[in-house]
Amino acid sequence: MHRVQVELGERSYPIDIGPALLQQTDLLLKHYPQVIIISNETVAPLYLEAASRLFANSQVLHFLLPDGEAYKTLEQFGHIQTFLLENRFARDGLLVALGGGVVGDITGFVAATYQRGVDFIQIPTTLLSQVDSSVGGKTAVNHPLGKNMIGAFKQPQQVLIDTDVLSSLPAKEFAAGMAEVVKYALIADPDFFDYLEQQAEAIERLEPTVLGEMIAHCCQMKADIVAADETEQGRRALLNLGHTFGHAIEAWLGYGSWLHGEAVAVGMVMAGQLAHSRGWLSAAELNRIQRLLTRFSLPVAKPEGMSIQDFLPYMKTDKKVRAGKMRFVLPTSFGYSEIIADVDEVELLSVFS
Amino acid sequence: MHRVQVELGERSYPIDIGPALLQQTDLLLKHYPQVIIISNETVAPLYLEAASRLFANSQVLHFLLPDGEAYKTLEQFGHIQTFLLENRFARDGLLVALGGGVVGDITGFVAATYQRGVDFIQIPTTLLSQVDSSVGGKTAVNHPLGKNMIGAFKQPQQVLIDTDVLSSLPAKEFAAGMAEVVKYALIADPDFFDYLEQQAEAIERLEPTVLGEMIAHCCQMKADIVAADETEQGRRALLNLGHTFGHAIEAWLGYGSWLHGEAVAVGMVMAGQLAHSRGWLSAAELNRIQRLLTRFSLPVAKPEGMSIQDFLPYMKTDKKVRAGKMRFVLPTSFGYSEIIADVDEVELLSVFS
Repeated sequence: MHRVQVELGERSYPIDIGPALLQQTDLLLKHYPQVIIISNETVAPLYLEAASRLFANSQVLHFLLPDGEAYKTLEQFGHIQTFLLENRFARDGLLVALGGGVVGDITGFVAATYQRGVDFIQIPTTLLSQVDSSVGGKTAVNHPLGKNMIGAFKQPQQVLIDTDVLSSLPAKEFAAGMAEVVKYALIADPDFFDYLEQQAEAIERLEPTVLGEMIAHCCQMKADIVAADETEQGRRALLNLGHTFGHAIEAWLGYGSWLHGEAVAVGMVMAGQLAHSRGWLSAAELNRIQRLLTRFSLPVAKPEGMSIQDFLPYMKTDKKVRAGKMRFVLPTSFGYSEIIADVDEVELLSVFS
Repeated sequence: MHRVQVELGERSYPIDIGPALLQQTDLLLKHYPQVIIISNETVAPLYLEAASRLFANSQVLHFLLPDGEAYKTLEQFGHIQTFLLENRFARDGLLVALGGGVVGDITGFVAATYQRGVDFIQIPTTLLSQVDSSVGGKTAVNHPLGKNMIGAFKQPQQVLIDTDVLSSLPAKEFAAGMAEVVKYALIADPDFFDYLEQQAEAIERLEPTVLGEMIAHCCQMKADIVAADETEQGRRALLNLGHTFGHAIEAWLGYGSWLHGEAVAVGMVMAGQLAHSRGWLSAAELNRIQRLLTRFSLPVAKPEGMSIQDFLPYMKTDKKVRAGKMRFVLPTSFGYSEIIADVDEVELLSVFS
């Protein structure tokens, strides 16, 4: 088992990573009289029973969302709040997010706001949420005008990552998670890029040791970045590599058409293309990125029919906008990225039209 | 002018209190490129123009809510978020709450959650919000099953209290504010109770010096309590004196039938009656409380037709509930209150039936 500690003073917490964690009740740090597990209709039949058994000495209830990004809405957020109130859930209770990024983000936002804040634990069941969204305390719901536009920073009490659950994950979703894994390599770790190339085959057949190592490495990188910049005043924005383009793709297609990771994969390629046109990445390096993403069955070209003009409205409401100016995370060399503020419409049109 | 500093480390901020503050542009601590003022249809015709002039060098937009507690909802919260997104409001913008508690609470909750948090300033225009809700960072919307059930702790960047605006406040609303003023005297300051009795006449005719003194004293008391216990783990719950009964009254009647302060006035009398039955307040002291509230035109008896049984369901979902037990704030002697955990249904029925 790996343990990664997120260092945030009195809001510090451990991330435990390994096989069969859902069978290990001794990992829980605190007892709660009442526990409400939020999950979805796909994950619950597989893991709700095991997750409930973790809290054998508490009253355990559950609330199930429909499956999919389309349900990460203010409306579903309201439904969960109603369920909690109907069941007289009190401030000393615990919420548990059992599922992927959607369940984790909406549960975290409920935990941040129900009676102005209650404890919660993340049990991420997709690769994407294990390496990214369950760590770091960003919570949110989507708005028709933008992804994750309404939310809060709310750290969980702990994160339990059972790598066994990945065996039930559809191949397409596993691939989507790999996009975020590759992202870490491009932000600040060219050695990790080499590792992913070398271990691609072991990763694909879900070799437990490699999975645990890879996920723990991503969590450690994210924990370090979050500890240095919890509320994204600076360096944390690097984690948005590929996301400015990616969010635009998701929003333009309608949330749920493409998986988030698929959109991020294309976003990273587009960021790479911008970097290449500035001379920061060679053609060979750009090619290497595209090849690894393709190796993990990810798309590398924007959706049919979506022009660069279609990206602009979404980019202008991006959360990184300051004083009306767009900001992008771009690779400035292979395996290193920075926040770049001087990309304008003219450059975007010239690179992508 | 009085200045009260709320001491919360890097989230510290000043509250400025005095006449004609809406004419004083030099009080603002920071410039913002875009400012969106949230107000309501009653306050805007009176003060929106003056408030806008404070931000002469920024782009200023406004969003108006209908007036009243009935609009402190998740739905209106969503409408404001939509307005911000439509106007490409960015993280470096400023929200301004211009109005009473409803406007302040909902604006604060939007500020806490729009793109996971933006700056905001409170300009409270009712006595109640000046002495209570604008200070301390509690933000929320109501849920049909309970008041303030969805919200966050979010401190403003500053609070501007212009005492002149009280001249346009309806007498009934001024009275409601006085309930919270009296509350401070009952929590921890018997001398302030004497002061209020002595100055009742000056207060009623809105004598500027007395108003400024009284409001600054309340803000200072609240600032001290909040600084010691920002997220209500302990002592801050004292500010809920009268609120457990009061919230039940508001919810049972339907939000907006009685003013919040009116319900709190009755709630304080009921808390006083409980304390009297326990021997903590003499009949004369209970009488003195009722007399001062009546002097300020406040109700002192629960609504016609509402039995003590009607209170119970609301009390059981109160945010102070721990391990299934209700907790009340009660005066333990004249001018001093504590959090009491051993009040049960039997006692409530015997005192109030």
